[in-house]
Amino acid sequence: MIKTDILIIGAGPTGLFTVFEAGLLKLKCHIIDALAQPGGQLAEIYPKKPIYDIPGFPEVMAGELVDNLLEQGKQFQPGFTLGERAETIEKQEDGSFIVTTNKGTQHHAPVVAIAGGLGSFEPRKPLIPNIHQFEDKGVAYMIKDPEVYRGKKVVIAGGGDSALDWSIFLADVADEVTLIHRRNEFRGALDSVEKVRELKMLGKINLVTPAEVVGLAGNDELEQVVVEHADKSQSTLEADAFIPLFGLSPKLGPIADWGLEIEKNAIKVDNSLDYQTNIPGVFAIGDVNTYPGKLKLILCGFHEATMMCQSAYQIINPGKRYVMKYTTVSGIDGFDGTRKEAEKAVVQAIN
Amino acid sequence: MIKTDILIIGAGPTGLFTVFEAGLLKLKCHIIDALAQPGGQLAEIYPKKPIYDIPGFPEVMAGELVDNLLEQGKQFQPGFTLGERAETIEKQEDGSFIVTTNKGTQHHAPVVAIAGGLGSFEPRKPLIPNIHQFEDKGVAYMIKDPEVYRGKKVVIAGGGDSALDWSIFLADVADEVTLIHRRNEFRGALDSVEKVRELKMLGKINLVTPAEVVGLAGNDELEQVVVEHADKSQSTLEADAFIPLFGLSPKLGPIADWGLEIEKNAIKVDNSLDYQTNIPGVFAIGDVNTYPGKLKLILCGFHEATMMCQSAYQIINPGKRYVMKYTTVSGIDGFDGTRKEAEKAVVQAIN
Ligand SMILES: Cc1cc2nc3c(=O)[nH]c(=O)nc-3n(C[C@H](O)[C@H](O)[C@H](O)COP(=O)(O)OP(=O)(O)OC[C@H]3O[C@@H](n4cnc5c(N)ncnc54)[C@H](O)[C@@H]3O)c2cc1C
Ligand SMILES: Cc1cc2nc3c(=O)[nH]c(=O)nc-3n(C[C@H](O)[C@H](O)[C@H](O)COP(=O)(O)OP(=O)(O)OC[C@H]3O[C@@H](n4cnc5c(N)ncnc54)[C@H](O)[C@@H]3O)c2cc1C
Repeated sequence: MIKTDILIIGAGPTGLFTVFEAGLLKLKCHIIDALAQPGGQLAEIYPKKPIYDIPGFPEVMAGELVDNLLEQGKQFQPGFTLGERAETIEKQEDGSFIVTTNKGTQHHAPVVAIAGGLGSFEPRKPLIPNIHQFEDKGVAYMIKDPEVYRGKKVVIAGGGDSALDWSIFLADVADEVTLIHRRNEFRGALDSVEKVRELKMLGKINLVTPAEVVGLAGNDELEQVVVEHADKSQSTLEADAFIPLFGLSPKLGPIADWGLEIEKNAIKVDNSLDYQTNIPGVFAIGDVNTYPGKLKLILCGFHEATMMCQSAYQIINPGKRYVMKYTTVSGIDGFDGTRKEAEKAVVQAIN
Repeated sequence: MIKTDILIIGAGPTGLFTVFEAGLLKLKCHIIDALAQPGGQLAEIYPKKPIYDIPGFPEVMAGELVDNLLEQGKQFQPGFTLGERAETIEKQEDGSFIVTTNKGTQHHAPVVAIAGGLGSFEPRKPLIPNIHQFEDKGVAYMIKDPEVYRGKKVVIAGGGDSALDWSIFLADVADEVTLIHRRNEFRGALDSVEKVRELKMLGKINLVTPAEVVGLAGNDELEQVVVEHADKSQSTLEADAFIPLFGLSPKLGPIADWGLEIEKNAIKVDNSLDYQTNIPGVFAIGDVNTYPGKLKLILCGFHEATMMCQSAYQIINPGKRYVMKYTTVSGIDGFDGTRKEAEKAVVQAIN
């Protein structure tokens, strides 16, 4: 059982910044995310695109913003349960909560902050009849640890940035990389397309287009994929791994059944105070919540997270008064023993 | 008469970010500030100190954040009335407002956003009987344009960062710089103290400590300052300018008389929607407002400014529906004809 002060569901920008604000109040956080990596929509949908409306950044790459948020919260040592979906919540007698994932991991906390964005990112799966049989036995819809593919024969399917970028990355790790796409044209960043072209020339990526994977075979573990070509002919490829990267799409999913007030596929909260839901102790912040005038913007999630942490502090430290201090004035004491502080002014005679 | 869409009072971080958010909605802004430079508390009180809780910045110098915010809003070409205090507001028959400064400058706008922080920064003045007589005739409490001191004999008084930094800066501009402080010890950034020490050695700054300016003399314009030393002896210095830099302190001041609901020296607003005050069309955002749970933090001002602009849009474009677009997706069209946009994905065959 993982224990923490604030259990955050969703490692998007809102969840990540919550770690930092909670840390200022000496509260520890643990984050669950269905994705293999933190960053939410920014990491999954547009890591290499610029955002122009983050205050203080005339322009920042989405992926860079995620890195910055991770760096900013680092000293507060958040825990992560990645690649798992928060599935159920149970209120305990003492008012605390146990949240369990689809893989059975249990988390216990007095406060739950749902920062689930548009929902848990779920892969779009290809329509191959027996694909479920090989899930986690060669078939993966996202890459958690590229090292597991070292020395392996990997088949990637897809025509977008993820398919391109992972083919490039794994070309150096796997024994063999085959990229299959149902069209000749790929859609992605120019430099990714060019890099794949180059690796194809060097024989480091086998490109099979236009074609589709239509079958999988193996005893227990995956051994072969069946590829259908434009002329309907089929061929077979030896493969230890098949990774269809057809995009992930967010689904509010199990959270919709937690007894929370839902409106327009989002969770209603009290925006006049602290973004608490109808269940005391459960907050909803960022894209996942709704209230009059709500804007699904990153900067709004930052404010909501900050306000929410104040109420979390009251729940966790009942009766204790918290006096807000400016980070500039008081510095920051990390849970890892680090301290950041402004250079002190000197008082010196000049003569 | 200066005309604009949103008249912003206060060029602190909240006011500056309002320019950007308004610009996204194609609304033009003009900012009034009592200070000579934009940045509010960050520029006036702690420009060289790090802030740790701006989302996405593990650390940022306050002055750098101000520069970034100016850069971010630049393409929306805000107007500025600096060094003047907004003094009166008059509601017009059509619901718009005329705001007049202490120097008589008039501004006309359908929406007023008060982003006045802790109030208008007013200088702490030394107790010299006839000092008022020489204000704007040699005496200045802040430096708007250092060029006016070129070739002049300047006397600066004070023992903090402003006094140190302006002495350093003017050493290269003015004909003569004298720095007077009532103690031998200065309090400031180490490198500023060291730089003054060096300029003193080089004879580029005359240092007179411990001493105080106790009298001013001149026909119409300032000509001399009278200095009293520790042993109570007095001496006289020729001076074209006397700049006492004893710090500026914020005072809510005239805004308190605008008929707004005031609580704890701040303006009450409707935080459940758009941070509007009890006067429709007048909003209060950032440190200057209050509501249940209010936190006087920069990041909260950013959110408040963003929400406020949506309602300003409705007031200025009644009945028109605004469809929010992501900056990443739609790019940014500046009022100056510039366009920022994400690099487009390419669609290319690889062969
Ligand atoms: C193409 C595009 C461009 C955009 N441009 C901008 C822009 O310019 N400016 C701007 O402000 N915003 C922009 N946005 C919106 C911005 O990305 C979102 O506002 C932001 O991502 C919301 O952050 P969040 O942390 O609330 O949620 P998300 O980023 O959506 O993260 C939520 C996370 O929660 C996880 N999750 C949800 N439910 C569960 C569960 N049950 N179990 C486990 N994990 C779960 C999801 O997997 C996801 O990773 C853009 C969005 C897109 C798609
Ligand atoms: C030493 C110090 C450290 C801080 N550290 C942090 C930190 O780490 N993190 C954080 O989030 N916050 C911090 N703060 C607080 C932060 O500076 C404020 O929250 C922020 O400045 C508020 O911004 P604002 O734009 O609302 O107002 P301000 O920055 O106060 O700007 C308001 C401006 O309005 C002008 N004004 C007001 N009335 C009038 C008028 N009638 N006419 C003309 N002009 C007027 C003023 O002159 C001023 O320039 C700190 C503050 C101080 C003093």
